[in-house]
Amino acid sequence: MRGVVMHSPGDVEVVDRPDPKILTPTDAVIRLSATCICGSDLWPWRGTDQVTDPCPMGHEYVGVVEQTGDDVATIKVGDFVIGSFFASDNTCEICQAGYQSRCVHAYLMGIEGTQAELARVPMADGTLVATPGPPDADLLPSLLAASDVLGTGWFAAVAADAGPGKTVAVVGDGAVGLLGVLAAKQLGAERIIAMSRHEDRQKLAIDFGATDIVEERGDTGVDRIKELTGGLGAHSVVEAVGTQESMMQAIRSTRPGGHVGYVGVSHGVELPGEELFFAELHLHGGPAPVRRFLPQLIDLIWNRTIDPGKVFDLELPLEHAAEGYEAMDERRAIKVLLRP
Amino acid sequence: MRGVVMHSPGDVEVVDRPDPKILTPTDAVIRLSATCICGSDLWPWRGTDQVTDPCPMGHEYVGVVEQTGDDVATIKVGDFVIGSFFASDNTCEICQAGYQSRCVHAYLMGIEGTQAELARVPMADGTLVATPGPPDADLLPSLLAASDVLGTGWFAAVAADAGPGKTVAVVGDGAVGLLGVLAAKQLGAERIIAMSRHEDRQKLAIDFGATDIVEERGDTGVDRIKELTGGLGAHSVVEAVGTQESMMQAIRSTRPGGHVGYVGVSHGVELPGEELFFAELHLHGGPAPVRRFLPQLIDLIWNRTIDPGKVFDLELPLEHAAEGYEAMDERRAIKVLLRP
Repeated sequence: MRGVVMHSPGDVEVVDRPDPKILTPTDAVIRLSATCICGSDLWPWRGTDQVTDPCPMGHEYVGVVEQTGDDVATIKVGDFVIGSFFASDNTCEICQAGYQSRCVHAYLMGIEGTQAELARVPMADGTLVATPGPPDADLLPSLLAASDVLGTGWFAAVAADAGPGKTVAVVGDGAVGLLGVLAAKQLGAERIIAMSRHEDRQKLAIDFGATDIVEERGDTGVDRIKELTGGLGAHSVVEAVGTQESMMQAIRSTRPGGHVGYVGVSHGVELPGEELFFAELHLHGGPAPVRRFLPQLIDLIWNRTIDPGKVFDLELPLEHAAEGYEAMDERRAIKVLLRP
Repeated sequence: MRGVVMHSPGDVEVVDRPDPKILTPTDAVIRLSATCICGSDLWPWRGTDQVTDPCPMGHEYVGVVEQTGDDVATIKVGDFVIGSFFASDNTCEICQAGYQSRCVHAYLMGIEGTQAELARVPMADGTLVATPGPPDADLLPSLLAASDVLGTGWFAAVAADAGPGKTVAVVGDGAVGLLGVLAAKQLGAERIIAMSRHEDRQKLAIDFGATDIVEERGDTGVDRIKELTGGLGAHSVVEAVGTQESMMQAIRSTRPGGHVGYVGVSHGVELPGEELFFAELHLHGGPAPVRRFLPQLIDLIWNRTIDPGKVFDLELPLEHAAEGYEAMDERRAIKVLLRP
């Protein structure tokens, strides 16, 4: 099959990779209908994370089941399925508590590399959720979004305790931040402040439910949030970047007793204990347990209540993946969908 | 009046201080029935926090109202009252959300110095809670505990989401940690692991409801907690120390999706963002909003359901305060009650 590998920072290529096979009886193999490039794929592309050449890329996926292992009971060949970037058994105590991304058997789908024609999915019954039937073609981008960015933005909004009567601020205007706006809206937030200085992203944020835009960053951005919230700060803040600056911006934008939901993969962050202590807020986040939300998200997409697929503003054939990486790195595209 | 001041680390003295007066119409002046030394008073005593000579000491108090300002409406002269170490208006948006320690008018009672015969209490209607009548003498220590250590331990247990079906671990065997055990028990926790290597404190922890004792600290302590919880870690961990070691011990003892409630005043703590991210837990804490819990705690004490006053294992006349500081510093006493 064809699949994307990264050789070194800035160097991705579509190459022939061996077709995945059933390795254990709980595996499935799916044929991807669509896959995409994640903001987190830019960490190695930019050289922030190390690259082992050749490194298969991609962890987001939707597609049709081609093969199942002997112990797969609920997922059938021919099902159209979506799974999270973490495969999980969905039965252990941690999964049952809703933290499938920390399943005792959690397996990072990035190891398989889903920017490819086919992918092996471990623990298929636990990991995959089938749609009610074959989806209409126009639903594909939204269903693909559920695999990571939508689920991650949703988790961030839930972790930030977004809900009725709440003012929610969102730090980060990438696909996850924008879908944090969508999630906050769906969860009933009264006011949603998107922090963005890019006109196209501001427009999408407003489309997803943002009521206010703050262009300033850092301490100036914090001051603007305070001005908009009677000097107190937002009740709920979504952090969707993962840098020291964005974390401190999120923490300082939150009122005492408020909640920060952080999902930006942490890079070089050190949180000052004393400031955190006196800030008196709730902090929750990490790799999103997307599997927890998948049935609900698929339902909202299937009923056309939400259209998270709008974050894909560039679509390319899989063979042109390198172009997609460049477009995202240069912020010419919010998120790139790849068609195998 | 007589009152405790600190001149420099290790040097406290009982001196004549001016009698407090009503400064604003919302003030009250109370005559203290009892006061006490806090674990946090040891930070300046040990030279970790700076001392301004002469520094009035103490922020915990119970007593009888002697005088009220013209705008005090609900608190009456003669009432027996308890308040938190933070005075608060109890009406602002932050107070109404239950975070009175971060009231927009929050005032630290340590500035008044309640290790004294009298104390001025700002925002008396918001700050003070009156008991149903004059308390029996034997209830005095428990009512005094509600002013800080009980309220703080209780907040930590609530922040750690202690409750039915939960395993709660408590890092720190000072008065706050021990009362975190008591709180976890009252909140219905199934299993309570006290981390302590001091026999007298272990006994009190068991008396308060601990089901297990772990003597090990640091990574070895974490390993023991994991062993006791099927390899997963505790659902809820109370952190009641405030050092880097204790915070990391708490974080690493918590299962994914679990909760850390931290109330040890943070000293030199830096939380590693990446570890925190992948730990995927809830962090909440800070200066306890004791006022939120006071009515409930007074009720539990009044009905003799709980006896948090047991943490006072040394009682001294106010004039002997220095001896109390030494006893707590040397861990000869868990907590020292002072009688003015």
